[in-house]
Amino acid sequence: MKLWDKGGQLDAAIERFTVGDDPQLDLELLPYDCAGSRAHARGLHRIGLLTDDELAALEQELAAIAADAEAGRIVIPPDLEDGHTYIEDRLTRVVGEAGKKIHAGRSRNDQVLTALRLLQRDRLAGLRTAVDGLREALAGLDRRAGAVPLPGFTHTRKAMPSSVGLWAQAWRDALADDLELLAGLERLLDRSPLGTGAGYGVPLPFDRAFTAAEMGFGGVQENPIHAQLTRGKYELAIVQWLTQVMLDINRLATDAIWFSLPEFGWFRLPDRFCTGSSLMPQKQNPDVLELARAALHVVTGCQQRIQGIVGNQISGYHRDLQWTKQPLLEALRLTRDTLAVMTAVVDGLIIDEARCRAAMTDELYATHRACELVRQGVPFREAYRQVAASLARPAGPAG
Amino acid sequence: MKLWDKGGQLDAAIERFTVGDDPQLDLELLPYDCAGSRAHARGLHRIGLLTDDELAALEQELAAIAADAEAGRIVIPPDLEDGHTYIEDRLTRVVGEAGKKIHAGRSRNDQVLTALRLLQRDRLAGLRTAVDGLREALAGLDRRAGAVPLPGFTHTRKAMPSSVGLWAQAWRDALADDLELLAGLERLLDRSPLGTGAGYGVPLPFDRAFTAAEMGFGGVQENPIHAQLTRGKYELAIVQWLTQVMLDINRLATDAIWFSLPEFGWFRLPDRFCTGSSLMPQKQNPDVLELARAALHVVTGCQQRIQGIVGNQISGYHRDLQWTKQPLLEALRLTRDTLAVMTAVVDGLIIDEARCRAAMTDELYATHRACELVRQGVPFREAYRQVAASLARPAGPAG
Amino acid sequence: MKLWDKGGQLDAAIERFTVGDDPQLDLELLPYDCAGSRAHARGLHRIGLLTDDELAALEQELAAIAADAEAGRIVIPPDLEDGHTYIEDRLTRVVGEAGKKIHAGRSRNDQVLTALRLLQRDRLAGLRTAVDGLREALAGLDRRAGAVPLPGFTHTRKAMPSSVGLWAQAWRDALADDLELLAGLERLLDRSPLGTGAGYGVPLPFDRAFTAAEMGFGGVQENPIHAQLTRGKYELAIVQWLTQVMLDINRLATDAIWFSLPEFGWFRLPDRFCTGSSLMPQKQNPDVLELARAALHVVTGCQQRIQGIVGNQISGYHRDLQWTKQPLLEALRLTRDTLAVMTAVVDGLIIDEARCRAAMTDELYATHRACELVRQGVPFREAYRQVAASLARPAGPAG
Amino acid sequence: MKLWDKGGQLDAAIERFTVGDDPQLDLELLPYDCAGSRAHARGLHRIGLLTDDELAALEQELAAIAADAEAGRIVIPPDLEDGHTYIEDRLTRVVGEAGKKIHAGRSRNDQVLTALRLLQRDRLAGLRTAVDGLREALAGLDRRAGAVPLPGFTHTRKAMPSSVGLWAQAWRDALADDLELLAGLERLLDRSPLGTGAGYGVPLPFDRAFTAAEMGFGGVQENPIHAQLTRGKYELAIVQWLTQVMLDINRLATDAIWFSLPEFGWFRLPDRFCTGSSLMPQKQNPDVLELARAALHVVTGCQQRIQGIVGNQISGYHRDLQWTKQPLLEALRLTRDTLAVMTAVVDGLIIDEARCRAAMTDELYATHRACELVRQGVPFREAYRQVAASLARPAGPAG
Repeated sequence: MKLWDKGGQLDAAIERFTVGDDPQLDLELLPYDCAGSRAHARGLHRIGLLTDDELAALEQELAAIAADAEAGRIVIPPDLEDGHTYIEDRLTRVVGEAGKKIHAGRSRNDQVLTALRLLQRDRLAGLRTAVDGLREALAGLDRRAGAVPLPGFTHTRKAMPSSVGLWAQAWRDALADDLELLAGLERLLDRSPLGTGAGYGVPLPFDRAFTAAEMGFGGVQENPIHAQLTRGKYELAIVQWLTQVMLDINRLATDAIWFSLPEFGWFRLPDRFCTGSSLMPQKQNPDVLELARAALHVVTGCQQRIQGIVGNQISGYHRDLQWTKQPLLEALRLTRDTLAVMTAVVDGLIIDEARCRAAMTDELYATHRACELVRQGVPFREAYRQVAASLARPAGPAG
Repeated sequence: MKLWDKGGQLDAAIERFTVGDDPQLDLELLPYDCAGSRAHARGLHRIGLLTDDELAALEQELAAIAADAEAGRIVIPPDLEDGHTYIEDRLTRVVGEAGKKIHAGRSRNDQVLTALRLLQRDRLAGLRTAVDGLREALAGLDRRAGAVPLPGFTHTRKAMPSSVGLWAQAWRDALADDLELLAGLERLLDRSPLGTGAGYGVPLPFDRAFTAAEMGFGGVQENPIHAQLTRGKYELAIVQWLTQVMLDINRLATDAIWFSLPEFGWFRLPDRFCTGSSLMPQKQNPDVLELARAALHVVTGCQQRIQGIVGNQISGYHRDLQWTKQPLLEALRLTRDTLAVMTAVVDGLIIDEARCRAAMTDELYATHRACELVRQGVPFREAYRQVAASLARPAGPAG
Repeated sequence: MKLWDKGGQLDAAIERFTVGDDPQLDLELLPYDCAGSRAHARGLHRIGLLTDDELAALEQELAAIAADAEAGRIVIPPDLEDGHTYIEDRLTRVVGEAGKKIHAGRSRNDQVLTALRLLQRDRLAGLRTAVDGLREALAGLDRRAGAVPLPGFTHTRKAMPSSVGLWAQAWRDALADDLELLAGLERLLDRSPLGTGAGYGVPLPFDRAFTAAEMGFGGVQENPIHAQLTRGKYELAIVQWLTQVMLDINRLATDAIWFSLPEFGWFRLPDRFCTGSSLMPQKQNPDVLELARAALHVVTGCQQRIQGIVGNQISGYHRDLQWTKQPLLEALRLTRDTLAVMTAVVDGLIIDEARCRAAMTDELYATHRACELVRQGVPFREAYRQVAASLARPAGPAG
Repeated sequence: MKLWDKGGQLDAAIERFTVGDDPQLDLELLPYDCAGSRAHARGLHRIGLLTDDELAALEQELAAIAADAEAGRIVIPPDLEDGHTYIEDRLTRVVGEAGKKIHAGRSRNDQVLTALRLLQRDRLAGLRTAVDGLREALAGLDRRAGAVPLPGFTHTRKAMPSSVGLWAQAWRDALADDLELLAGLERLLDRSPLGTGAGYGVPLPFDRAFTAAEMGFGGVQENPIHAQLTRGKYELAIVQWLTQVMLDINRLATDAIWFSLPEFGWFRLPDRFCTGSSLMPQKQNPDVLELARAALHVVTGCQQRIQGIVGNQISGYHRDLQWTKQPLLEALRLTRDTLAVMTAVVDGLIIDEARCRAAMTDELYATHRACELVRQGVPFREAYRQVAASLARPAGPAG
């Protein structure tokens, strides 16, 4: 039975369309929804709307639901619409009257906001660790091959000397930038929306600071309209941040594909990381790097989805916002998986020092020669022209 | 066993990442892959690379696979990677030697291109019908309530008189524009890529016109590099077209939400189309329209995903392109579902004639008064200023 | 004086913000606006709202405005807001009373729609020619170097033999696909919106077929709400199409950057197409190709801008739609310029046959060897494995 | 003369295409480029590559260039390509030999990176102030009309009681979120890229901490590849942040359009903020709010442009990156202008208390009645159903 059931009957096709994937998606959200619901129950108990026994019974069943969810034992029937309904329905069936009381002063709007924020906080903590993991793998690469020279490119053309160490360190620094940006996001997510109801507050004397603390939040989001405005807005901010991380990975992967061109051979993927062709017997393909590169665009598509939904809308909840959940979850999951895979790739990357050294051809040092002239007192622009004049053009048909 | 297996072992995490959702996604593709494989087998038979018996056996098992796929009886094990491998593996297990022969002169690249094109052709035919269905529902609305007046708005402010009929007909025309654009797309999709191999042709004397005709294509895509360039490009063109359809639906749904504001009350959704709130007892919400509105942004997110993957890449297949499949399938499916639901909504829409008539307030006719003066010989700009001067500003606090 | 002036005073900062770039942007639109205005004047004359003399005077001054616009002699003062106001203002100043009559039964909404459609039709005709020009340049490349072999790549790894001719022809075919898609768009744009007023028709007995024919349109857009719905929608359709063209160019340019890597040297840009570095004396950079590649993303950004503006809006004109004009004009102009530049690049491209031939290494023929075995009766999958086993891995540190 | 001139001649059409809008765009950048160039000159002086006199002469002319730029007195000739070349050219013409020395150990790559970062830091400081200004205007609205009740909406349907104060405060909080996110960005931008050359360092013994301090940076970006990776990445991060601000404004403007519907009349724009129609004499349109709403999509289009350019590229500078400058500058400027205009709008907003109070209809208090029952001991879900049953459906044709 739906939470808003008043005796009517929803058209079956409309129901299928509106319910959509929520029963599947909410399985990931359930443990967080249970944690939020426990805090809400404690809040109701604190103001005398639940007895000690009722609270105990609710907490016990909420723990059971969370455990079932994490063990993959839950299937949400479509007629229950979503995880929020599943929880109230199961509590009512198992615990009785107290189950009917748990939604007092709560809307699915602040319930999902709370559950999502708990999930977001948790996932971002995991991603902070994963980014650190990739940074550590890059440090490892630097330790084992940092001194190996590499050509540095601009305009996809040889420019100046670089090295494996300089390259590995650059990605470490780019990822450190991402962690710097993450800090602001973490502060936003550290405030509890629970108790803001449908977006206009609730006429019950909740102790919101208490429930916030129960969930480990550093503070409360006071204004209920603001709390609703964060729906979509914070999802967008998170996915924008994921885009930053994935952009680094996209370009790191593109470099790795490039440096491991057989024609260059500076990097090589271990055989166990390569895939083949169904037609061409000779192929060793870097599929893993290509998909790590493609992952940016999946995340960007998620960002697009969220942003399009939120724009040009008046404040307050709209059902459209429900569809910001899927892209958020997908983008978080893919970023986590891609970070893990890239960490393995960096750990396994083979550097062919001999081929690297062979690639350090003369033109890479043209700037050094100009700077040498500068040290001898030649104005830079003249030094530049002298060196340029001394360089022969590569042979070939005339242009 | 993978098609490209040469005895090595792929890292398990890498394998999970690269395989991704293909085993699930390819279930939708399997029937089309079987149709393409049958045409390929007939092509091999035609040039003497399969015997009559081999062809018959392969065709029989391909039909069985297609039937299993449509009945939902197939699960593709992750170690088989995808539907293409599933087919060759099953043919080899069931039919024996002939199974090992079917991939002769074929790459997964042209195999998936062929299967996708067959699917695309089929889905777009279905969407043409669905768009016609929504146009017919709008015609029905015009027939039953076309003469009912409605205010016309510009800048979200009352502008000039409109009517339910004018409104319904406008959407019919917008959808007709979409069908016009569809025609070009249908021509592109009417050519067979089968026989282009991995994107550089195949050193076997295939009769490509024969296999194209077997699949009902109007012609052949001659150039194999071109065939590979269509991967991503055609997906983008299709999703761009879906975006056009969904933009119409987005704005139609937004209008319907607006015209059914209780404060206006010109339109009303039947109760069986409305959902409620978990907190607020009075609510009747147009969730179905809000999600139909949101669907545009899901499709646009799919477009973003595809376009990001394809750009800045050299020609030829890249594994990234594999990830254009998911957004294509999702966008096609969502467009189909949304068209069906909007058709039901338009069929069920209740027009409250009394409230419509009550909304036809005086200011809607100001332009008529100016034009009346024009007919009497007053230059338009003067007529405009006369009418403007005659209109009182609405009462309220001074601005 | 503004067209809607009623004696009040608009806040100066608000005015600056709302007027924006229209005075500059509309200079490009003015000749088309004059053509639309001439047709409208003839329509007014036809139903007796303008005398012969008035029409003649208006036509003469409209021709003068168009000539001034094309000669770059017009500056639109910000207080006139836009080109539409400029025209009425100038007509009124020069021609007198008849100038005040020309806006009878017209709204800036259908005026800009008409002018834009005339411009769009014209620009797309120009782009059709420009695409043909690039196709011809590719044909020329095929004629002069088609037989030169090139390695074909998949996964950025050598795959199978290709050739300059195969490559050039592929882009010709991709661009032919674009022309196929263009045909549908051209049909949409061949209908006149003039006479639909602000989006709800006009209470004057216009002969819309007459004015449509005057402007060379094949027909009339009957429904005025539909006509307004095309604002943003057609701009989106056009820019989607431009995206298809620019995607081809993006990948063509990426190929050309790649094939002209000094390490490969298969293609070379003439020196007069290359730019250098301010620091590194040796550099010859393919900036022109890099910017031709980047141009796709400018056009996609234009698409994003248009689509975001239109979505989630009720029907009818909104001022937001005004801001779809800039991205349309920018995308059209950039596509034209990029096509011209790429045509020059293809015409000038130098093919180094010796280096191409040297690149045709053995592994490119592995599939040929497997197919040869197939011709001898070996099932393909076994042939594949035999060839794979015969291929040595490249030397280097162990993986 | 171009900085990289080696005696050849660039094709004129290619030159026009590659130079593009840089001569215009760089006018905004020139003062920052002068500041960066001064720091670089001081750095050269510090390591003995410029004499005291040379430094003094360069500093004097750099100050003159900056002053000319700020006074709008500079036109960059297209053959000089960009502002960087303009500076070196002018210094060389005015100061002589020292002008040819200033580029020693500098690339246009780190020069533009430095100038852009100085501009970005400056612009973001301005935007922080502008966001504070809008927050203050909202506080003023709260002070003067905070207690006036407003209906709160969900699903565009009346939900629960809200107030002008709750509403104004919500936007203040959303904008405070933006300032929280800004802090992370400000930290990233507080490090100097000067001295990283073309992205691979410079073979001269620069004191990078010194030049960083000269420009007021808190630190140095050590790794030169990292410094180049920030090109595009930081632009993206900035525009993502602008998107957050503009999303708030988009929804605030949409609310204001909605609350000022004449049918509601809760808010009203002063006449001096409204524009009219060229056709319909009665219209008072909220164009300023519609364009403030549209501005989000312009900024999002800029984000799209930047992101598309950067993705799928190997590390190191590419000319494509040059085209991230225009969208950055446009998005910064539009955000500044829109914040200013919205601040004026909020300051001028008229609240019609009588119409607000009249809108506080009974159904807004249904949740209050259910919560009252909860306080009396009725389980919430039962209280909800009792209240729902007591509510009559609005009259009208049967559904």
